[in-house]
Amino acid sequence: MVKALILYPKPDDRAAFERHYYDIHLPLVRKIPHLKSLSVNRDPPTTLVGKSPYHLVVELEFASQQDCDAAFASAESRLAAEDLATFAPPGRVRFVYEVRSVMPETA
Amino acid sequence: MVKALILYPKPDDRAAFERHYYDIHLPLVRKIPHLKSLSVNRDPPTTLVGKSPYHLVVELEFASQQDCDAAFASAESRLAAEDLATFAPPGRVRFVYEVRSVMPETA
Repeated sequence: MVKALILYPKPDDRAAFERHYYDIHLPLVRKIPHLKSLSVNRDPPTTLVGKSPYHLVVELEFASQQDCDAAFASAESRLAAEDLATFAPPGRVRFVYEVRSVMPETA
Repeated sequence: MVKALILYPKPDDRAAFERHYYDIHLPLVRKIPHLKSLSVNRDPPTTLVGKSPYHLVVELEFASQQDCDAAFASAESRLAAEDLATFAPPGRVRFVYEVRSVMPETA
């Protein structure tokens, strides 16, 4: 399982950000091919340790690195990226990694 | 599903950090009660957008916020936190949120 984790910093205007994100951006993300699952945080994260500068946590899961690469190279992904540029606050982080399940243990 | 996401910044000495993390710390984390699943990134994340200052991404999943609170209040969690203070680089972020599955859709 390969995961793309996208962390959005706190927006200046939370209501406007969330309206655009859920009504316009998320439907574009859902159209990205090879996407196996997609989840977001229901409410802003609570911080236990350190500063939590992130408002929105988005996880995209893919069956393989190949699927992930194809997804981000797709026309649907480009459309979503173009939309992102119109409303998302600067400072977001997007990184990709293969997930290793420690518990329950898998091969 | 409630998730605690812990992001560790790049350590100065990667080998020493990983040795301590996997050999000593992770076995302590596994003992934390109420833990439903635990995963880490297999290799350091690759960055697609923005700076990826994080070296290690750890996800702890719990069935509920109540379970998560009980887990972090446990003696096992305190032991793990005490160990963390001995080797983890400063600047880690730990935050908690309820996961909303967008795709596949759930209630």
